[in-house]
Amino acid sequence: MRKDRLFLAVILTAIFSADLYFILLPKLRNAGDGSGRFCSCQRSNFSLPGQFSNWTALTLQDLDPSGRGNGSSKLDGLFTHPLYNTEKPTVAAAERLLQSDRLMDYYRKKVSRWERHMKLYNEAVAASNITVTDYQVTFDPDANWLKFHTGISRHALYSRHDPAIARLLLDMRDMTVINSDFTQDEKALKGTCDCSQVVKPSGHHLKLALKMQNFGKAMFKPMRQQRDEETPEDVFFFVDVQRHNAEIAAFHLDSILDFRRVPPVVGRFLNLTGEVLQVTRNDDLRGVFFTSPANNTCFFAKCLYVCKTEYAVCGSPDLLEGSLSAYLPGLSIAPRISIPNPWIRSYTFTGQEEWQVNPSYCDTIKKLYPYNSGNRLLNIIDMSVFDFLMGNMDRHHYEIFTEFGDEGFLLHLDNARGFGKHSKDEMSILAPLSQCCMIKRSTLLRLQLLAQPQFRLSDVMRESLQKDPLHPILTEAHLSALDRRLIKILRAVQRCTRKLGDARVITDDFVRAAVNPRAYTESKKAR
Amino acid sequence: MRKDRLFLAVILTAIFSADLYFILLPKLRNAGDGSGRFCSCQRSNFSLPGQFSNWTALTLQDLDPSGRGNGSSKLDGLFTHPLYNTEKPTVAAAERLLQSDRLMDYYRKKVSRWERHMKLYNEAVAASNITVTDYQVTFDPDANWLKFHTGISRHALYSRHDPAIARLLLDMRDMTVINSDFTQDEKALKGTCDCSQVVKPSGHHLKLALKMQNFGKAMFKPMRQQRDEETPEDVFFFVDVQRHNAEIAAFHLDSILDFRRVPPVVGRFLNLTGEVLQVTRNDDLRGVFFTSPANNTCFFAKCLYVCKTEYAVCGSPDLLEGSLSAYLPGLSIAPRISIPNPWIRSYTFTGQEEWQVNPSYCDTIKKLYPYNSGNRLLNIIDMSVFDFLMGNMDRHHYEIFTEFGDEGFLLHLDNARGFGKHSKDEMSILAPLSQCCMIKRSTLLRLQLLAQPQFRLSDVMRESLQKDPLHPILTEAHLSALDRRLIKILRAVQRCTRKLGDARVITDDFVRAAVNPRAYTESKKAR
Repeated sequence: MRKDRLFLAVILTAIFSADLYFILLPKLRNAGDGSGRFCSCQRSNFSLPGQFSNWTALTLQDLDPSGRGNGSSKLDGLFTHPLYNTEKPTVAAAERLLQSDRLMDYYRKKVSRWERHMKLYNEAVAASNITVTDYQVTFDPDANWLKFHTGISRHALYSRHDPAIARLLLDMRDMTVINSDFTQDEKALKGTCDCSQVVKPSGHHLKLALKMQNFGKAMFKPMRQQRDEETPEDVFFFVDVQRHNAEIAAFHLDSILDFRRVPPVVGRFLNLTGEVLQVTRNDDLRGVFFTSPANNTCFFAKCLYVCKTEYAVCGSPDLLEGSLSAYLPGLSIAPRISIPNPWIRSYTFTGQEEWQVNPSYCDTIKKLYPYNSGNRLLNIIDMSVFDFLMGNMDRHHYEIFTEFGDEGFLLHLDNARGFGKHSKDEMSILAPLSQCCMIKRSTLLRLQLLAQPQFRLSDVMRESLQKDPLHPILTEAHLSALDRRLIKILRAVQRCTRKLGDARVITDDFVRAAVNPRAYTESKKAR
Repeated sequence: MRKDRLFLAVILTAIFSADLYFILLPKLRNAGDGSGRFCSCQRSNFSLPGQFSNWTALTLQDLDPSGRGNGSSKLDGLFTHPLYNTEKPTVAAAERLLQSDRLMDYYRKKVSRWERHMKLYNEAVAASNITVTDYQVTFDPDANWLKFHTGISRHALYSRHDPAIARLLLDMRDMTVINSDFTQDEKALKGTCDCSQVVKPSGHHLKLALKMQNFGKAMFKPMRQQRDEETPEDVFFFVDVQRHNAEIAAFHLDSILDFRRVPPVVGRFLNLTGEVLQVTRNDDLRGVFFTSPANNTCFFAKCLYVCKTEYAVCGSPDLLEGSLSAYLPGLSIAPRISIPNPWIRSYTFTGQEEWQVNPSYCDTIKKLYPYNSGNRLLNIIDMSVFDFLMGNMDRHHYEIFTEFGDEGFLLHLDNARGFGKHSKDEMSILAPLSQCCMIKRSTLLRLQLLAQPQFRLSDVMRESLQKDPLHPILTEAHLSALDRRLIKILRAVQRCTRKLGDARVITDDFVRAAVNPRAYTESKKAR
């Protein structure tokens, strides 16, 4: 009997050992690997190093942390933080870009002219075999796009909590398109192929100007690339495609950084037949439509029409995903000036610009008008921070409203070349910051805030982008890259402060703002 | 004690049951799935329906099956099958394209001229700062490329068991490149952008002519597309990229179909610096080289140089994958004529050709010279079978050697637009077969043979392609598509025979060949 029991015990032990060794252990090992796979690898790289909280004269701890939100929304928490509440709720009339009455008069006249033109056009078209869907324009003085235009101030394109912006996004998403046309850029090409130079690449020529039923206008950029496609490493930045999702993400990022220098952008599925082909009055635009071998409705750019057919975009069968950016007020009523970026890149294969070879390039720039006084250089550095986070190398020019003179903010237009590569941080984009060793205190504080776990940039971006109808707008890899790049910006500032001291690097654009937040507007007025 | 033993027995049983249920069963299930995954899913769709073996006057059972190979190699089995051994081993001098002496004289003169030119060029270059690697040409009258040229007969580009072909492939894979240049097509463009029409697309302009150390020539087509990428459904066939792997696969397919109308093609990694840039004597070619942002060596096409930079190909950092196709004898010694394919497609967005709308188009063609007599129409149908298997819609012209007159075989050149979509069978490519309801008996028999499990087309193709240095050349999805399309060809023939009877559909190109195989050459001579 003892033998029997021993035998059974041995067998039992053997079975248990075998189970343990061959089954349980591998499973545990797999589970270990699995959990490693599910947690984002980038996160572990990212936790704001302790030293960041001590190396500026003003630390985030000085700020009232009561505004961290209720825990359910990091984005709400961010926007209720004191750093995001330094502005007076209303903007004085003198600070606005446009006076409301003048704007209304201007648009009423435009609507009348449009209606006259449409009447004549429809009479002419009645004789031909073209069918154009004819919608009535309903000019609404309370339209959200008009509120956006009247809300533009010398500080930003819109104020922080302007409800008209959220409503304008809804309008752009839903409103009936009553007219489509080439954009002005497109028209400037006049359908000719200028092969004497490297032409601006494909995506550039596929954008459309859409007019909404309430006379609002938006620019449509079609989807050219899948969310998970990365720009191949051999592609020069200036021939990269334009990404509709980068336009959308840039609007959200700009708003989260509290710059508010990007006009509102929203994603939308456009019906190429009903919302473009059947409402255009431009024969040239009608002429670039065709049906693909898969029976989808497609169109391609005018210039490229006669050259290459690869540059088409196609609906499925009619619906095409894209971004809609709100138009700024017309140039005749709100002129803008376009100025070459001092850190412009060479748009050739071999060229190098001075800033790429001369480490003390900024010393020269600092002496030159308009960078030798005021905020212009700091604004350029803000822009480089914005572009570095997105990986956008295509910032050849910047625009400002002439109305605001040299102190006007820089418009961050045309961001479709951002978010091309999540795996590479193009440090050269940060050259204005790293070469000039200057940054606005307000910008730095917000960047530090966004590096804190409770406001992590990737988290607030993810949350913000979820509001877009085409979400997810960015892949997780792109969101993680934002956190990684943010740390690199802070490190670049840290290198400067170690070398030059805080006082020379961190520039008070609102003096003692964070200790006793004084309105940004006030500090501006005082200058 | 009994209780004790019962308890242990129960525990043991429980453990065994648990093991059986949770461990062994799932493992068995996985193994089952696994084997399902490894065997090609399409296989189950594919087994030659029984009726196929009975519906031709001549069945495969009539043939000696002794040549089915030793089971280890389906390809060897195929090539030893009587259907692949109907030819006399040697080709009579009168049947050759070129007489050996004349060819040797011609090339000796070309080599002398080349050496004179190089001497002058090198003297001129010595004064400049260009470095060109200078290799001596070693003209070898026993070179494999010369044997390929002399072996071209009125029946095919090479005979079935010519050892020079395998050796030529090795030469092309390994030999030192002593000169690189644009191809003649490229030169014809003269660097200008003709935007007055849709230009032939990108890939077309990136091919290079390479000269080997033994004076052999090959055309290089660079890799433009990953093996697993499918051509997007909205892309018109004529703007599809050219695929180097399609060139390679087409050579193997043509050989397996026993057409032998495609010049030998092999895959090779080319060093863009050492084997192209440093050996070219063409300044224009040198001028299209550039270094990419990722520091890779790239080049782009001459015409497109000034227009668009997207059309570049890049090495990694210098090595670029591509296909090398052996050149045919020069046009001055072996002129060819290029004839529009009667089943040509419209190279426009909306155009339709007559064959696409007129079901009795073939009746017209049959009455027209040269399709009203001889084998020309049957050769066109062979070509449509070849193109349908590859999914190649871009067969606008075919070429024949003028030396062989109207009875010459059709050259199957330029196959790089094949193998674009594995998931679609473009039935229109088969229009010559389905509209004319004719096929050569020899072709049909081989197609039937390749539909048998022991010679399955996908299997022999996979085996044949494994010989290429760049294998795998085709994905499994493309290989499976070959089997599926083969069945569709056989079904198309079956529909014809049901309607018209075997005698009117299946044309004896070798009379009673399979019952008593008479040499294809003899039947030809008898005509």
